Amino acid sequence: MANRMSIVLFSGTVDKMMAASVMASGGVMMGMDVDIFATFYGLNSLRKENVGTNTRFSKDFEEMAGPMMMMMKQKHTPSWYDNLKQAKELGNVKVHGCSMTAELMGLKKDDYDPIIDDMCGVATFVDSAQNSQITLFI
Amino acid sequence: MANRMSIVLFSGTVDKMMAASVMASGGVMMGMDVDIFATFYGLNSLRKENVGTNTRFSKDFEEMAGPMMMMMKQKHTPSWYDNLKQAKELGNVKVHGCSMTAELMGLKKDDYDPIIDDMCGVATFVDSAQNSQITLFI
Amino acid sequence: MANRMSIVLFSGTVDKMMAASVMASGGVMMGMDVDIFATFYGLNSLRKENVGTNTRFSKDFEEMAGPMMMMMKQKHTPSWYDNLKQAKELGNVKVHGCSMTAELMGLKKDDYDPIIDDMCGVATFVDSAQNSQITLFI
Repeated sequence: MANRMSIVLFSGTVDKMMAASVMASGGVMMGMDVDIFATFYGLNSLRKENVGTNTRFSKDFEEMAGPMMMMMKQKHTPSWYDNLKQAKELGNVKVHGCSMTAELMGLKKDDYDPIIDDMCGVATFVDSAQNSQITLFI
Repeated sequence: MANRMSIVLFSGTVDKMMAASVMASGGVMMGMDVDIFATFYGLNSLRKENVGTNTRFSKDFEEMAGPMMMMMKQKHTPSWYDNLKQAKELGNVKVHGCSMTAELMGLKKDDYDPIIDDMCGVATFVDSAQNSQITLFI
Repeated sequence: MANRMSIVLFSGTVDKMMAASVMASGGVMMGMDVDIFATFYGLNSLRKENVGTNTRFSKDFEEMAGPMMMMMKQKHTPSWYDNLKQAKELGNVKVHGCSMTAELMGLKKDDYDPIIDDMCGVATFVDSAQNSQITLFI
């Protein structure tokens, strides 16, 4: 059985979405299975209407957003979305949407980008995360 | 011996307190023991005077605070406090206050809400967290 | 073989740098090896020009920054930097700079404070983190 990385993707800022996608890619490179549980703002950033238009960076480092976006463009760094999509193509990466958050928002699976594989509850995620070698709350 | 989830509760915003209480509930549902180490702002939000009045959300998503609070009220979603209290009633969930933070603030156990079981140092928490299947820094 | 704690240091605010250094110290006290992977803003805060001048606190609790800084000064609390340095002297703590972030910023190892032991990629960090008892994303 492959080792497993479990990520709670709570935040939805571009910088943390990037961090999550990079950690997931690192997991795939090391042959790990990766589970991402998108919840709260993280799930919100995966709504169809938000997924391509999100330019929000952490307020803590707001003045770095512009320069970083520019450098990423210059160096043709793939976006978090392309990163994550590629990780899913190369390895066993699953993105689970938090059903409680969706219900609170009055939304259904179809309101989210198809990068989300399924919706599930926190207990299901926790059950699988117990068998992870790496767990991260991002 | 039951599996264990260890949470460092560093942040004290309502959204992250909610996330911590939901993760703890998920752990209890899966039969895990849960240890929460409340430190920095997380411990501050557990002061008697703050515990019922905290409406602070992450600045990163500030405009979502109002709508989310309203939706949670409409759907009668329990607060993070009620969530956490219920998790403590249903399972083996302990909340430890960081003694170093309390000392820095000039506060004692009695200044905090009784949802905190005891005060302890970081080494004690780390010692127990080593035997956890899931560790999260929230 | 000693137990291991692996920390992704993503944030670069003083409060989270402090939290990372305290967790690392706790790990050392418990005889653990500690690996810190400094990336994004965390790595930026370790640039030679930033390491001694950073006074940035989380925007979420901005009004607490002044009072906390004052209390830490009054009680002679060591800075996160001194904390981390001491943890490195007392135990097996390694700080790895994220090579991808450095490359994006057009920087080299020599642009960072010598508290960084080496630069490495995310896959190398993940490989080692798989064998950790505690993994934290800060």
